[in-house]
Amino acid sequence: MKVAAIGVGLTKFGEHWENSFSQLFVDAGAMALKDAGIDGKDIEAIFVGNMSGGRFVDQEHISSLIADNCGLTPIPSTRIEAACASGGLALRQGVMAIESGFHDIVVAGGVEKMTDILTERTTQTLATAANQEWEAFLGMTFPGLYAMIARRHMHEFGTTREQLAMVSVKNHENAMNNPYAQYHVKITAEEVMNSTIVADPLRLLDCSPITDGAACIILASEKKAKEFTDSPIYITGSGQASSSISLHDRERIAVTDATVNASREAYRRADKTPGDIGVAEVHDAFTIGEILAIEGLGFCDIGKGGITTENGETKIGGRIPVNTSGGLKAKGHPVGATGVAQAAEIIFQLRGEAGKRQVDADVGLTHNIGGSGGTAVVHILEK
Amino acid sequence: MKVAAIGVGLTKFGEHWENSFSQLFVDAGAMALKDAGIDGKDIEAIFVGNMSGGRFVDQEHISSLIADNCGLTPIPSTRIEAACASGGLALRQGVMAIESGFHDIVVAGGVEKMTDILTERTTQTLATAANQEWEAFLGMTFPGLYAMIARRHMHEFGTTREQLAMVSVKNHENAMNNPYAQYHVKITAEEVMNSTIVADPLRLLDCSPITDGAACIILASEKKAKEFTDSPIYITGSGQASSSISLHDRERIAVTDATVNASREAYRRADKTPGDIGVAEVHDAFTIGEILAIEGLGFCDIGKGGITTENGETKIGGRIPVNTSGGLKAKGHPVGATGVAQAAEIIFQLRGEAGKRQVDADVGLTHNIGGSGGTAVVHILEK
Repeated sequence: MKVAAIGVGLTKFGEHWENSFSQLFVDAGAMALKDAGIDGKDIEAIFVGNMSGGRFVDQEHISSLIADNCGLTPIPSTRIEAACASGGLALRQGVMAIESGFHDIVVAGGVEKMTDILTERTTQTLATAANQEWEAFLGMTFPGLYAMIARRHMHEFGTTREQLAMVSVKNHENAMNNPYAQYHVKITAEEVMNSTIVADPLRLLDCSPITDGAACIILASEKKAKEFTDSPIYITGSGQASSSISLHDRERIAVTDATVNASREAYRRADKTPGDIGVAEVHDAFTIGEILAIEGLGFCDIGKGGITTENGETKIGGRIPVNTSGGLKAKGHPVGATGVAQAAEIIFQLRGEAGKRQVDADVGLTHNIGGSGGTAVVHILEK
Repeated sequence: MKVAAIGVGLTKFGEHWENSFSQLFVDAGAMALKDAGIDGKDIEAIFVGNMSGGRFVDQEHISSLIADNCGLTPIPSTRIEAACASGGLALRQGVMAIESGFHDIVVAGGVEKMTDILTERTTQTLATAANQEWEAFLGMTFPGLYAMIARRHMHEFGTTREQLAMVSVKNHENAMNNPYAQYHVKITAEEVMNSTIVADPLRLLDCSPITDGAACIILASEKKAKEFTDSPIYITGSGQASSSISLHDRERIAVTDATVNASREAYRRADKTPGDIGVAEVHDAFTIGEILAIEGLGFCDIGKGGITTENGETKIGGRIPVNTSGGLKAKGHPVGATGVAQAAEIIFQLRGEAGKRQVDADVGLTHNIGGSGGTAVVHILEK
């Protein structure tokens, strides 16, 4: 069975001081319903990705809260969590719910409200995506983990500090044309390389920000989709893989095996190869993350992500445009929402609704990572 | 497609000071694999129910940790959360994963380690299953919410304090014969009614305890199941419903609408009626919870749960034996594991492996609640 995306909604990403956690989801959901041209009563189930309602807003059981505040009780509502990959997994569970025949129309969404607590608690909470006993309790943070990966990548493959910066420069440039993005600020490679050091070699402008936001996709069975739209976007491939949650337990550090394994499954299901992909949203929580992603997804050879970026191949207009939305770096990274927002961008692109950041593509891909690579989930979308 | 349970594993429920959070899951998983007669390499995905790793053990992203510690990477591993209904939803996602054709053999498990933090933080964490803004921040706790439900039930239907006590007495008696139960202590109705008051009218012996534990079920497609066992137990019905997370927002307080709605779906899918059920595990987080459950599930009329209990109809040997395992009250309630452990008990019963607590039944039911009734999930299992 084919599963179609028939509606998309998202909030502006940024600091939402006037909006509650659940209101963000309601706003994104309302936009998605309107976009799909359906009513709340058509929705049969909710799957919501969220990393840490329990720590960011002291609220677990958000599935019930969200169904309630959306006015959608008594339909089933389920929260999915895999750190920063929570949104991508919610999308996958939504696809499964339809393919299983349990439901015909569901919402797959994601939400995170990260600014309601003190910054040091935010950092601690993000660190719960790493192994607490072996990493976080010993003082390791996510910039620290990704800095070690970056250093190893530079050592093994000759990736340069400038190439890392170019990821950030490109994504900030793309975000200039995305009204949902947190930042509309052009930056230069020099600015990245001279920004405050966070964890050597990563600097402030290598790191995605703290963000509030939500995103929703309405998924429907092929049959139902045709009742509501003439131009559904199909989700033809879904792949998910796990890896050691701890960096030190992996066989290799400078390659994200979970990405390799998840994308292999997604390509197989969609009967596609990396060369078929015309646009991709990948998990650039840190600049090195995008380089790891384009390598793991097969857009270039392992070790060639830096030079591929430097050559402009991942720019809009390049061979394989990556993170046209601005990516996690410049669009923002409300962790539980990110995987769904990535799919939203691909849907905008495939529908030709991406405005000044529009690329020419019939097939798109999303790539969402949990932790330092303990979870990866990849989706392939097609016109 | 029919989905079969081919293996069951669980830890003893109780206080596990020597075991880590993930080790509990590994132990339950290893027992389930052995029971199924399969190897770890046969497992294609993990679905794990967990309420609050983030707060109980400072660890989110537990799906990756568990896949890693089970030695099952790189297979997909996904955490599901809906407070105390997390385990039941993990089971449902496992069923969907197989019915969708994504997987043939998966583990649906649940785990919670609740004793590693101070008791007051445990209470605060459990309260994150209620509406934080409207309930928990104002001082409301779960015993308080269920006490109000109990008071309303007594007011509307004449349910007595003694009838509440009889739930606890029965479940402690059942637990005497369950080696996995936290308590092996017979109690009397007088002891329940004279125990320390927690939230009037509920007393200490009306409340389920704080528990560490894990449970796992191996699920397989019908075709695969037949390769491994001649006596699979089929999951023929699954129903899930949401309701307002806040008690004050519900149309009625003394009836759990989510239970009514979830069971209706489960009965419909399994083509069964309440009268077909021969044994049930229901969500007795508080004694009033079991009375609400047997009414909402249709085992007796609304308002008659107290007298049904008093008449002994829910005892082993009665018309519809309920909580033969000892229930949440006496078996223990490691919140994320409970929904899976309920299914484990029904599988033991349907296989005829329940020892001295064995009943004669061909069809069983599990009923798992999140919060004060914001989520309900019901499964029907058959020989």
